[in-house]
Amino acid sequence: MSLRIAVVNGDGIGPEVIPEAQKILEHFLPDADFYEVELGLAKWERSGSACSPDDIRELKGADAILFGAVTTPPDPNYRSVLLQIRHELDLYANLRPIRPLRSSGQGSPADMMIVRENTEGLYSGIEEIGEERSTTLRVVTKAGSKRIAEKACSLILERNSKSPLVIGYKGNVLKSDLLFRDTCSEVAASFGIQTKAVFIDALCLDVLQHPKNYDVIVTTNMFGDILSDVCGYLTGGLGMLPSANIGDTHAFFEPVHGSAPDIAGKGIANPVAAIRSAAMMLEYFGMKREACLVEESIADLINSGVCTPDLGGCESTSSFGNRLLAAV
Amino acid sequence: MSLRIAVVNGDGIGPEVIPEAQKILEHFLPDADFYEVELGLAKWERSGSACSPDDIRELKGADAILFGAVTTPPDPNYRSVLLQIRHELDLYANLRPIRPLRSSGQGSPADMMIVRENTEGLYSGIEEIGEERSTTLRVVTKAGSKRIAEKACSLILERNSKSPLVIGYKGNVLKSDLLFRDTCSEVAASFGIQTKAVFIDALCLDVLQHPKNYDVIVTTNMFGDILSDVCGYLTGGLGMLPSANIGDTHAFFEPVHGSAPDIAGKGIANPVAAIRSAAMMLEYFGMKREACLVEESIADLINSGVCTPDLGGCESTSSFGNRLLAAV
Ligand SMILES: CC(C)[C@H](C(=O)O)[C@@H](O)C(=O)O
Ligand SMILES: CC(C)[C@H](C(=O)O)[C@@H](O)C(=O)O
Repeated sequence: MSLRIAVVNGDGIGPEVIPEAQKILEHFLPDADFYEVELGLAKWERSGSACSPDDIRELKGADAILFGAVTTPPDPNYRSVLLQIRHELDLYANLRPIRPLRSSGQGSPADMMIVRENTEGLYSGIEEIGEERSTTLRVVTKAGSKRIAEKACSLILERNSKSPLVIGYKGNVLKSDLLFRDTCSEVAASFGIQTKAVFIDALCLDVLQHPKNYDVIVTTNMFGDILSDVCGYLTGGLGMLPSANIGDTHAFFEPVHGSAPDIAGKGIANPVAAIRSAAMMLEYFGMKREACLVEESIADLINSGVCTPDLGGCESTSSFGNRLLAAV
Repeated sequence: MSLRIAVVNGDGIGPEVIPEAQKILEHFLPDADFYEVELGLAKWERSGSACSPDDIRELKGADAILFGAVTTPPDPNYRSVLLQIRHELDLYANLRPIRPLRSSGQGSPADMMIVRENTEGLYSGIEEIGEERSTTLRVVTKAGSKRIAEKACSLILERNSKSPLVIGYKGNVLKSDLLFRDTCSEVAASFGIQTKAVFIDALCLDVLQHPKNYDVIVTTNMFGDILSDVCGYLTGGLGMLPSANIGDTHAFFEPVHGSAPDIAGKGIANPVAAIRSAAMMLEYFGMKREACLVEESIADLINSGVCTPDLGGCESTSSFGNRLLAAV
């Protein structure tokens, strides 16, 4: 049976970058069945729903989802499409590889993987909103910590890494984070992997100062959200960062950048993050060699000056995509 | 009546850097009464208490507190001295100026002020610890948001800033943060100040990419904790960063770096963050000119290569302190 791949263009630059990523997937997966699912602000404005139960069913029917970006309307009652999908599809592992593609001329570049817990923490949705006081419950569970730690440990094995698993936490303030740290340590021990627990504030600085000291970092939801944007600095901005949101039965691939309404419609958006997300999907399907080829071809193009204006080049979104397709 | 200044050396490099900062204070405040308060790990090991009710009373009796650093023992029942003091003295505003002192040769350096709410948010201490599930309540109150916003707005006026007040928040996930954002906006409006609300993850990246676009940033407790460490990257590390913890009746000045046990006892710790914290104390006492003189003299020394090893120099902690004292 052929693979079924759901494609969500979304809003803003989503419909510009996603077709370039889809071209690459179509090239390597000629028999796959691609089908579009419309989600996001434009749909919400038209139909009052940004992501309906039917849409969720459609997404659940896919072997993998390629997702662009959606714009969040400035409405306090609006429920984030991304959060809804992560929740409904139980995509508990948000994987964000940090690997600069531009050669810096300073020896081997950084190469790390942020493994962000994606279903609990401050994203619990348990809130009490009042005029004088509003609260959000930060939830750490043993089960949630265990499965994300297992994911992080398998990645260490896959990467053949000799480094310890770094645990980003804030146990000097949040005693609840000791459950996270200790569960990660237990899981790591069962894998025969060392751990190093680092306070998240210090970690956000140290990844900038010593990026090469890091390999796999596991952390809770909001800390991972911030840490991955901080690491965007190491790769020349979010335009370059791919991500995978993985659960036990579903997988969702998405550039870390948002819908960037300010540059939408101009054909200048950098499709690299979207294309690298597609490469992560290939890897998810076991096509590691093809994924590496895509990564290397992107690096070659960029390093020879073929890139979009954000990186100082003069390619359009689609001309870059076409150059890449020719290269792979 | 002469000023009463409590001095807490603490642990690790605290007893090395604080005397250098105290020398500067003694120079500019020859009539002040300095008295030591012992707090921290060493005291805890000896007496079972790192900070007793008596100690708190002593601190409360001061016009200002100069604080080094304390080491947190790896004991889950230990209560952080810093958090205890912030709480008991109601030091609700944690002010962290980010101003690199080394000339980078790239025009005017960044100059921003992080105004971190220091009493609530994820630091509420409201936790339920279990084996399967542990939670922490993140609390945002209107009153807490109002007073920190007022502090931030007065700073904008003092700094004669034309920039908007930037609000770091995460309202796309934490609906409770809309109370923070909206309260800050209301307060700013009453001061005639514009605001710009930015999601904290994006903000942590953008301060790195465009530091000169920022002036005063107000944010909640944990976000401010992380953001200020991230900004440490702009100033060559935490060794340079001072802070003030201010309430309505007490004021506490502290280098952002911790006790750094790894380099303690060697006489090589950089005293700049501690000395700049002392300069913030001078400014707090209305001695803005003297504070500027200290800052400028530090910059001159560093830019002419007089600095501790972390900055590439060969001064010891105390020889740097003496050079500075001679300069001011
Ligand atoms: C858009 C937002 C809900 C999301 C998050 O906070 O997870 C984004 O910042 C991300 O990192 O994927
Ligand atoms: C030591 C710790 C409790 C403290 C904090 O989290 O506030 C520190 O990181 C800081 O920034 O002052």
